Amino acid sequence: MPELPEATVAAAVNALDTPTVVIDAGKVEANLRRAQAYADRYGLRLRPHIKTHKMPHLAARQIELGAAGITCQKLGEAEVMADAGIADIFLPYNIIGAAKLARLTELKRRVKLSVTADNAVVAAGYAATFVDPAAPLPVLVECDTGLGRCGVTTPEAAVELALVIAAAPGLSFGGLMTFPATHRTIEARAFLERTIALLVAAGLPPAIVSSGGTPDLYGAGEDAGTVTEYRPGTYVFSDRFQVEKGLGTYDDCALSVLATVVSRPTDTRAVIDAGSKALTSDLLGLDGYGYLPAYPDARIVSLSEEHGVIDFSASSRRPEIGERLHVIPNHVCPVVNLFDSVHFLQADGSIEDVPVAARGRVD
Amino acid sequence: MPELPEATVAAAVNALDTPTVVIDAGKVEANLRRAQAYADRYGLRLRPHIKTHKMPHLAARQIELGAAGITCQKLGEAEVMADAGIADIFLPYNIIGAAKLARLTELKRRVKLSVTADNAVVAAGYAATFVDPAAPLPVLVECDTGLGRCGVTTPEAAVELALVIAAAPGLSFGGLMTFPATHRTIEARAFLERTIALLVAAGLPPAIVSSGGTPDLYGAGEDAGTVTEYRPGTYVFSDRFQVEKGLGTYDDCALSVLATVVSRPTDTRAVIDAGSKALTSDLLGLDGYGYLPAYPDARIVSLSEEHGVIDFSASSRRPEIGERLHVIPNHVCPVVNLFDSVHFLQADGSIEDVPVAARGRVD
Repeated sequence: MPELPEATVAAAVNALDTPTVVIDAGKVEANLRRAQAYADRYGLRLRPHIKTHKMPHLAARQIELGAAGITCQKLGEAEVMADAGIADIFLPYNIIGAAKLARLTELKRRVKLSVTADNAVVAAGYAATFVDPAAPLPVLVECDTGLGRCGVTTPEAAVELALVIAAAPGLSFGGLMTFPATHRTIEARAFLERTIALLVAAGLPPAIVSSGGTPDLYGAGEDAGTVTEYRPGTYVFSDRFQVEKGLGTYDDCALSVLATVVSRPTDTRAVIDAGSKALTSDLLGLDGYGYLPAYPDARIVSLSEEHGVIDFSASSRRPEIGERLHVIPNHVCPVVNLFDSVHFLQADGSIEDVPVAARGRVD
Repeated sequence: MPELPEATVAAAVNALDTPTVVIDAGKVEANLRRAQAYADRYGLRLRPHIKTHKMPHLAARQIELGAAGITCQKLGEAEVMADAGIADIFLPYNIIGAAKLARLTELKRRVKLSVTADNAVVAAGYAATFVDPAAPLPVLVECDTGLGRCGVTTPEAAVELALVIAAAPGLSFGGLMTFPATHRTIEARAFLERTIALLVAAGLPPAIVSSGGTPDLYGAGEDAGTVTEYRPGTYVFSDRFQVEKGLGTYDDCALSVLATVVSRPTDTRAVIDAGSKALTSDLLGLDGYGYLPAYPDARIVSLSEEHGVIDFSASSRRPEIGERLHVIPNHVCPVVNLFDSVHFLQADGSIEDVPVAARGRVD
């Protein structure tokens, strides 16, 4: 995977025990710069989702390069990022319950914070917790523009909820949030445009219209008139799913799981020491559990927790026992979440072991 | 899930933030006792696989109840268990490479250790590392009796490898290991029986014949003449896969992921705050991503990392926003691996927060 002097890299990587995560720092930097330049070109604010990397130094770098702030999916992730000095955090999640609202209150004292709601129960929780009109909590309305997960399901419901939020003394209506990208379908864009028109008519023009998703990142400019902010996550490392969706090539994948061939039971079968506890069981509609750059015709056919079974039937070259293989995972985000620390390969061939500070912040 | 006084339990559980893992300590104890009693009845040594729980206090309890020792899948897990005073550890894995062999050497100084090999390269690594005839390392030969993962694929190959091991001064031939259970198929049992006959003829009768797997645990007695040791893992907690395979009922499931309904976008859809980073994407051939004891007709149709989408179309009762749901995961082992700590519900209704000490020991 790397573009560094091969021998230097090989020596550094050979010293690592497996399975482990290796990240090419130069590719990360290129991925971050490319996205920021694209967003800048279209006047979109970039608000990267840190769920993918979970590491404060990368969040800081994203902001240095021009990001407007970061996105976190969990309060616990936001707390880690605030501890590290990140100053502007968006939590696009319905935050519910006394314990979480107390933590949210504490977090709001430390950073520029915004959240979402898609229902009146959640909005009521915010309204009862945040009561200072001088420092209102911005709440964006989450819209379901086609995914079928969270989100109000009609423009009218969005406006109704925006009015509830705007009427609460300690809250402010922050705008609209949706996922995935609205330029993907005519219906999604129409949902947003109609909602915005209704909001304008109601005297509540949305300050922020936030869209997201890495696979559609480089089409986000199409919506720049409607959307003001974009939240890509996976772009920092990329993965097999992104490449298969057309985002760059495998050369842009900065992260791989390094594994060792521990068994060659048959001519065509190899077993590596990376299973579902290193690669996850995420298929995302793909065939097999990862991509092997050194053996593009091989197929990771099954995973158990600590074994990955690879079929080399279609590959003319086949590995020896003890050989090390880089695996580009199907879905990189939950992979990072499985490792306490990851190895960054620097331009000089040195390797830095970096803790995944926000790993396992489940709540 | 619990059989404790309902109000007591409810109060304790209500104080927990979600998503989190709740374990009924009484059910764990019952699961452990039932398996040990079964093994004792058939004269099988029980060697529980700690990959499921990853917690030293449960390994210690398994041994107190009569287990012959424990099984670990990773060297790092074994190191944690040795630190906690577990004295007899089986590592049924091909251990490869200088770094791991050095750790294995250190581990062998501390505990009664045994390992496996399924090929001559791995055996040669052991033979070069362990050279003391006075304290040889027992190496069992892993046999593929049908799974198609690791293991020698013929009885003849098993004997050939056993001879290589027996010839190494610092190793001893420890016997045979296979997974899953050999009583499941005629072919698997025939493989073992033929291998044993060949070994006896070669002057190497296997001291241990180790089989495993929770779904088939309560049939292991059928093989008690051939198999000497059984390695169940999941039986400690059970899960949806085990119940669907016929192991007990959902009442025996000691572990659930506690989640909160954060959104009710439509009449039939609910979204909980547990996604693939709490439940994993493991399907194991099942329909949906978990079982809801309170809503048996509901179906967890999709997971993203921090959202679980549930379809209540087939359920007459439906939850409110803010309601808490217990989810019995499809596959409990990788779920435990996602949490830094888990909550044990004790018989008096109190809750103990226990670190998952061997979580994330990837190598």
